[in-house]
Amino acid sequence: MEKLQNFDRLSLNQITTDRWSLREAVEGSVRAGIPWIAPWRNKVAEAGLAESRRYIRDAGLKVSSLCRGGYFPAATAAGRQERLDDNRRAVEEAAELGAEVLVLVCGPSADKDIATARQQVEEGIEQLIPHARAHGVKLGIEPLHPMYAAERSVIVTLGQANTLAEKFNAEDVGVVVDVFHVWWDPNLYSEIARAGDRIRGFHVSDWIVPVPDLLLGRGMMGDGVIELRRMRQAVEAAGYKGPIEVEIFNRAVWDTPGDEVLALMKERYLEHC
Amino acid sequence: MEKLQNFDRLSLNQITTDRWSLREAVEGSVRAGIPWIAPWRNKVAEAGLAESRRYIRDAGLKVSSLCRGGYFPAATAAGRQERLDDNRRAVEEAAELGAEVLVLVCGPSADKDIATARQQVEEGIEQLIPHARAHGVKLGIEPLHPMYAAERSVIVTLGQANTLAEKFNAEDVGVVVDVFHVWWDPNLYSEIARAGDRIRGFHVSDWIVPVPDLLLGRGMMGDGVIELRRMRQAVEAAGYKGPIEVEIFNRAVWDTPGDEVLALMKERYLEHC
Repeated sequence: MEKLQNFDRLSLNQITTDRWSLREAVEGSVRAGIPWIAPWRNKVAEAGLAESRRYIRDAGLKVSSLCRGGYFPAATAAGRQERLDDNRRAVEEAAELGAEVLVLVCGPSADKDIATARQQVEEGIEQLIPHARAHGVKLGIEPLHPMYAAERSVIVTLGQANTLAEKFNAEDVGVVVDVFHVWWDPNLYSEIARAGDRIRGFHVSDWIVPVPDLLLGRGMMGDGVIELRRMRQAVEAAGYKGPIEVEIFNRAVWDTPGDEVLALMKERYLEHC
Repeated sequence: MEKLQNFDRLSLNQITTDRWSLREAVEGSVRAGIPWIAPWRNKVAEAGLAESRRYIRDAGLKVSSLCRGGYFPAATAAGRQERLDDNRRAVEEAAELGAEVLVLVCGPSADKDIATARQQVEEGIEQLIPHARAHGVKLGIEPLHPMYAAERSVIVTLGQANTLAEKFNAEDVGVVVDVFHVWWDPNLYSEIARAGDRIRGFHVSDWIVPVPDLLLGRGMMGDGVIELRRMRQAVEAAGYKGPIEVEIFNRAVWDTPGDEVLALMKERYLEHC
């Protein structure tokens, strides 16, 4: 299988260098020659939206995605309306930053009734679409690993994300494939093919053995068991040629100086992705 | 939905009282009026097979399952043969103990090639069937939660377990439904219906929020988010009327005196299952 030959598609998902402010992440990306960035909303808020936009544009970086919208389910109608309002702000921020996609982490159930929560996710996306379309922002449903079903996302497989996305126009709603969340799935490759031109993002990291931590246990590419290159080539075969985000939630990575993380990330990207 | 009215179907999976020897677990079950037990092979080995059989029979307990066979994939043919030999011994032990089913935890991949590992699981089961049939032992494929895909089982969904089981006669190979492993699955109820008379076991515990530990984080029924009664009634609607095993891997539960655990387990069983 062919290796990647350059860094044209490489994107720094900002969580990978969580200690850095948005400005530091922008400057670090420029130093490292990484052309894409995926900011997080909390970091954008800290820096200010207009400032964030200016840092990114002045540095000549492109924005692969904004992390994140979602969290649609809530116990009450008022709660769901609050979530929707927040998603509308996320859409506006994505548009302002020139992000190609707003990533949706769809949220957990407010109670034991996971089926109802899934219905609320569908309703939330449906209600968000007009605003997203008006702002030229595409929505990307990111299925999360099933171990986050109770706390972060009731959307847990790529098949489920595809079924949900297919209820809407492909221009409006697609899916985001993160290797950490989906690598275990026996239907993975058929669902990647099915996703086709709805794939709005591809995130890489690795699954370390043993898993050091439920949330902060993701590994640098090459440190775990995921068939990264096979998955990258599958999303390409399905039609995705866009940016490849490195998104690593890991305390040890966060404790490493950002420039070192980016250097290692570039090396592993060519070697393993 | 109707509650369970008595303890006729209640089974103590021995891991729930991991500090107890087999003899202590048998005696504790008798004290608590729990009619079924699911021993673990390491505990049977400690007590001796013939002794274990005698304890259980003398106490008048029934054996819902033996935990566990499986772990089929290995890097070499010799390694896979060793695993198969061990599975044959597990079958003999299940027969000796009068277990209704040998639970199969199918094992992780020896490398990154998870597809090949899954093929090795299928081959291992196929090779084990004649021995199991000769000993009157049914095999139950237990899909494990995807968070265990790299370390314990490449079989991670009930759908995948069903597809695998359906390659063989229903008399030989079925599936085991453990709520902790499958509750998150968007296809759960259709796959329970599909499993039908292949369901060979039903295991209960709960998914605590937040998850305290990847391996030892299961909760007592009622302490988490799983729709236990809905799932129990679904397996019954599919045709399963057999024992219901309480299987809890949890350090805090293990640190509690066994008699207290069994008392709480009985209370929660009637209240939540």
